Amino acid sequence: MALIVQKYGGTSVGSAERIKNVARRVAKWKAQGHGLVVVVSAMSGETNRLIALAKEIQPDPDPRELDVIAATGEQVTIGLLSMALKEIGIDAVSYTGWQMPMITDSAHTKARIQSISDEKMRADLDAGRVVVVAGFQGIDETGSITTLGRGGSDTSAVAIAAALKADECQIYTDVDGVYTTDPRVVQEARRLKTITFEEMIEMASLGSKVLQIRSVEFAGKYKVRLRVLSSFEDEGEGTLITFEEDETMEKAVVAGIAFDRNEARINVKGVPDKPGIAYQILGPVSDANIEVDMIIQNVGDNGTTDFSFTVPRGEYQKALAILRDVQSHLGAADVNGDDKIAKVSIVGVGMRSHCGIASTMFRTLAEEGINIQLISTSEIKVSVLIDEKYLELAVRVLHKAFGLDQA
Amino acid sequence: MALIVQKYGGTSVGSAERIKNVARRVAKWKAQGHGLVVVVSAMSGETNRLIALAKEIQPDPDPRELDVIAATGEQVTIGLLSMALKEIGIDAVSYTGWQMPMITDSAHTKARIQSISDEKMRADLDAGRVVVVAGFQGIDETGSITTLGRGGSDTSAVAIAAALKADECQIYTDVDGVYTTDPRVVQEARRLKTITFEEMIEMASLGSKVLQIRSVEFAGKYKVRLRVLSSFEDEGEGTLITFEEDETMEKAVVAGIAFDRNEARINVKGVPDKPGIAYQILGPVSDANIEVDMIIQNVGDNGTTDFSFTVPRGEYQKALAILRDVQSHLGAADVNGDDKIAKVSIVGVGMRSHCGIASTMFRTLAEEGINIQLISTSEIKVSVLIDEKYLELAVRVLHKAFGLDQA
Repeated sequence: MALIVQKYGGTSVGSAERIKNVARRVAKWKAQGHGLVVVVSAMSGETNRLIALAKEIQPDPDPRELDVIAATGEQVTIGLLSMALKEIGIDAVSYTGWQMPMITDSAHTKARIQSISDEKMRADLDAGRVVVVAGFQGIDETGSITTLGRGGSDTSAVAIAAALKADECQIYTDVDGVYTTDPRVVQEARRLKTITFEEMIEMASLGSKVLQIRSVEFAGKYKVRLRVLSSFEDEGEGTLITFEEDETMEKAVVAGIAFDRNEARINVKGVPDKPGIAYQILGPVSDANIEVDMIIQNVGDNGTTDFSFTVPRGEYQKALAILRDVQSHLGAADVNGDDKIAKVSIVGVGMRSHCGIASTMFRTLAEEGINIQLISTSEIKVSVLIDEKYLELAVRVLHKAFGLDQA
Repeated sequence: MALIVQKYGGTSVGSAERIKNVARRVAKWKAQGHGLVVVVSAMSGETNRLIALAKEIQPDPDPRELDVIAATGEQVTIGLLSMALKEIGIDAVSYTGWQMPMITDSAHTKARIQSISDEKMRADLDAGRVVVVAGFQGIDETGSITTLGRGGSDTSAVAIAAALKADECQIYTDVDGVYTTDPRVVQEARRLKTITFEEMIEMASLGSKVLQIRSVEFAGKYKVRLRVLSSFEDEGEGTLITFEEDETMEKAVVAGIAFDRNEARINVKGVPDKPGIAYQILGPVSDANIEVDMIIQNVGDNGTTDFSFTVPRGEYQKALAILRDVQSHLGAADVNGDDKIAKVSIVGVGMRSHCGIASTMFRTLAEEGINIQLISTSEIKVSVLIDEKYLELAVRVLHKAFGLDQA
């Protein structure tokens, strides 16, 4: 008799048949006496179709109107899933973001949740109804439709679980849990039974696309019990994301290897080594709403320094153009970059209490002749930037070096 | 410097290119200094696609959830058209039904408008913005999305024009006005410069699909100046729907020939000729939400009578089954019907002051050997039911008989 929030992604609701499968799964949980709120994404391909349509009209779409359009994807799915539930005798009711309402700020296409009204959902749950909610969307104070950005349905689900104080938030996806690394790259990759929130955040932010990072942060902040499960397998307990390193946890130092092909490196060479230079370089980039990931400033000589950072690959040309615009103002000798790079990271809370993890990583890569371009570390991860062509090799040798292929 | 409400149907916004055309047309009116509210339908084919998807899940879709799904079609179009306007430098803002809001009753899939809030629209118009509104949809008192039923965008446009006391409501469609009859059937069909509301209502209700009948009734009730125009031609004044038979009007007795293939006839034979029998026959049909159009009861002999009526062809089998269920209760000798029939009507306010119109119609049909199955008349129209195979012939000969082929 638990209250469970389930989230089904685009692939899980990608066709009428799959929506019926989701309904049957929900019915099974309901039959066990649980209260259920189901958050859904747009049918797979639908959001891309809508955005492409918008770009046909306006290459750089107006954000408010883009949200009006994009939000329809999830709206269709909630109607369809509610119908599928009713068709098998389960009472259900759908809510869009504004019907709930889920109030967000006004940052269209990447809004942040401010509050959730749970009254309607509670009344429906009390009446024995399954509540079907459109993920990814909300409404701002002026009454405009907003969206949370790509993958925002995970965040919706976790936020709703937090608002309802649900017993568990289950994220159903096309994989059956979180793996030590991408099984498409390393055949020996294993599913983790548990992973800590901190590790999950690093894995998610580093390109392991199982969960959207904001949803994990949200879950950590509001202590939502989060589980990743496969929507295509009826059995399996997936991966539970835990708050603490409890005794039953797997004791590997490194929990997993994450990687990301979606970055590009920009170098600003020979800038005067003086206070404020980092801000002068990154200010215009951030003004253009380009997210910067790794940032490295080398100690310089002759009063100059070299500055490097990474941006999403899709923003590479834009970022490069911005820097070239300000190059003479910065007094930089050169601005260049490389968009054929990849980031590989080892992640694990065990790294806190173990030395030599980073050096094992560097040695392993060196033995394969893989040059490291940039290094960035945090308490529980080490990331390196390498030539994209060595990515698969690097992930495979690291997976083995840290014993992740052994149960 | 007028306030104009324009409505563009699904064909007019059927592709990115067509939406851009609509934006250019709106911009032209705007450049003349007019205030503009633009009501749009879903892109052609979209509503059918959504309904088909819903029926894949639930053959008899839940009406509340069907509205949730169907309303997304118009929501996409308002976003796209607003973008198209912004792209050519026209400030614009979109509103869904619930954002306006347009309050309706809770009769999902065929809701009726109860009130419209015009504050937001007026503020936008005052600020020089073009207001883009999703037709066909509203919100009920419980906050659920409702739709007005097929063709409801016309009604939305007229209701908004009434609420804003607009100078004119222009319905842009794929034809350039109202014709004396369907030009696909009669090559000599002519566009009418004006038609009275009463005639338009008869023409619309009789299957001339230019305007949805409820929108015409609404326009008549609230004295909205209504014009039908082509969205594909830049010139042309379309057809103005007038309130009175003014001096400049064309003086034809018959304004046009309407026809409808979408009906089926049901006969209930040999029922006791006693008070209440019509109700006993039509009650169960109306309880099943089947609309009945023509109703004929013959004077009977031997204390029995024959009763005939027409229903939409899609409901024929259902209506027949209902009547057969109650046949013995009614004491009817037989229940049968025919779904290969068509209705042809002559319409004109001039018929009020002219005799012999009906007999001209009957004679013309008789001369072609076309048998009349049912006749029904009103002050400004005469409708007959005939074998469907004679439909085109009947329309052509009547068009000629009443001189409609002559300017």
